[in-house]
Amino acid sequence: MQKMQNVVVNVNGQILTPEQASVSVFDRSYLYGDSLYEVARTYKGKPLFLHEHLLRMKRSAELCHMALDQPLEIYQKEMQRTLEAFLSLPGQAAVEAYIRIVLSRGIGKIGFGLNCLLSPTQYTIIVQPLNPPSDEQFEKGFRFRVVDRLRNDSRALDPAMKSGNYLNNLLAYLEATNDGFDDALLCNSEGHITEGTTFNIFYARNGIIATPPLDIGILHGLTRHAVIETARQLGYWVREVRFSKERLYEADEVFMTSTIKEVFPVTQVDNSHTSPGPITKKLRDAFRSRVPEWLNA
Amino acid sequence: MQKMQNVVVNVNGQILTPEQASVSVFDRSYLYGDSLYEVARTYKGKPLFLHEHLLRMKRSAELCHMALDQPLEIYQKEMQRTLEAFLSLPGQAAVEAYIRIVLSRGIGKIGFGLNCLLSPTQYTIIVQPLNPPSDEQFEKGFRFRVVDRLRNDSRALDPAMKSGNYLNNLLAYLEATNDGFDDALLCNSEGHITEGTTFNIFYARNGIIATPPLDIGILHGLTRHAVIETARQLGYWVREVRFSKERLYEADEVFMTSTIKEVFPVTQVDNSHTSPGPITKKLRDAFRSRVPEWLNA
Repeated sequence: MQKMQNVVVNVNGQILTPEQASVSVFDRSYLYGDSLYEVARTYKGKPLFLHEHLLRMKRSAELCHMALDQPLEIYQKEMQRTLEAFLSLPGQAAVEAYIRIVLSRGIGKIGFGLNCLLSPTQYTIIVQPLNPPSDEQFEKGFRFRVVDRLRNDSRALDPAMKSGNYLNNLLAYLEATNDGFDDALLCNSEGHITEGTTFNIFYARNGIIATPPLDIGILHGLTRHAVIETARQLGYWVREVRFSKERLYEADEVFMTSTIKEVFPVTQVDNSHTSPGPITKKLRDAFRSRVPEWLNA
Repeated sequence: MQKMQNVVVNVNGQILTPEQASVSVFDRSYLYGDSLYEVARTYKGKPLFLHEHLLRMKRSAELCHMALDQPLEIYQKEMQRTLEAFLSLPGQAAVEAYIRIVLSRGIGKIGFGLNCLLSPTQYTIIVQPLNPPSDEQFEKGFRFRVVDRLRNDSRALDPAMKSGNYLNNLLAYLEATNDGFDDALLCNSEGHITEGTTFNIFYARNGIIATPPLDIGILHGLTRHAVIETARQLGYWVREVRFSKERLYEADEVFMTSTIKEVFPVTQVDNSHTSPGPITKKLRDAFRSRVPEWLNA
């Protein structure tokens, strides 16, 4: 394994270097992707929406028939402790952090039967330098391909559950980048846009903002939620509606939201081009300006 | 980790005890379920269809945009070598073996971008005692629930790809066993039966055998294939057709096929009961009687 700089890992409460951090090959995360995860980021060294991320992890656990048998505060405390170990590395105090928690059902005999663990018995927390897109990238925006691959149907595997089963997203990503795009958008079987591989999607037309509704089968994005709320505060009409890819082609502005990329312009969808627009910029700025308020909430 | 008896593990060519065998938490199998697998079994110490399992792994790799950059013979040789280590354990020579290979894209930085590995860089082979169902269990048969959860749509995540994304199957299993059943059958969004969590499904009515077609989006079961071929040799008409769960309720016999369980009777589907029937028994016996021929092919 190539040496990873400035990365701190916590495995079941033990702070380790990345090279030391491992799981058994009998861990169900390795065998079945039978795990959940969340990703948070810091602002000035403080993690944003950490409790909300853990609440979402709890909802993921319910969707996955996994019983969290210890209070969320334990995970929150361990994430904080790992973050502090990261921030105390030489030169890291000024760097923002990416914080990932993975929760696995843990080690069991191979097979589902008899010994299927209901509670997670393994967790890993990874803290590493945040690598957000630059202002230059903001001006360029992202170029997205609406891929043929469908988003997982929520009746089969609910995208609202943030799990270790990530191949649907990964394969969509590979298909889009293989066509020269930055990333992928996925439709459902009715041809409606759902979300991207790791982000929610919005468009604006004639001053009205639209984004797919939660019940279409998407991740309940925390940034998505905060942006909708912020936009409404600013007086925008935000519609949560089903739409096909053509609506993105015709939009005045397209943007995506995610924990890491906040509000970010999409300047190409398939063969249709736009520029980073005023609503996208206004929402990005408004989102950022509200961060201190959320951190102190 | 509880001590596992009589289990041999091979991680990237190194033979290890189960307790020693681990992968990095940065392995994509752990983070994304970004891995493939196959399971074979032995008859009198010889693995059946090993080459066919590896050919299927190669097809899974294509579906997963993973390039196998070393010849399948390397994996086959390592599986044989691990099997021999298992058989040389005290008292194991008389025991049949379960052989699992897991192939992972390996370690990369978190995120899809930039460093997305196209070839697998990590593999694990696990050999342990086979635990097939007993003759007594054969007489009782399995009790299956047709669960509400749908099978993954092949346009989202193709069930023909045997991957480390196994939550769809696992959640179906948990839902069925929670209702007191042994295992689950899954339908597609049109209400057609597809397959079970780890097996293919058949029924017989009026002497005619039926099973869902491959293009409905199911695993291309090697035992399924061998059983269809064997049944046709015996003069049965085998239809590969779409059908809803009601056809299983009305069937004379229902049976499942898998590498480990071969041909096995299903004596209950939801609230509908049958007994292990003559066709099921005849096919199980015929399958077993052909094993020496296949082993020498």
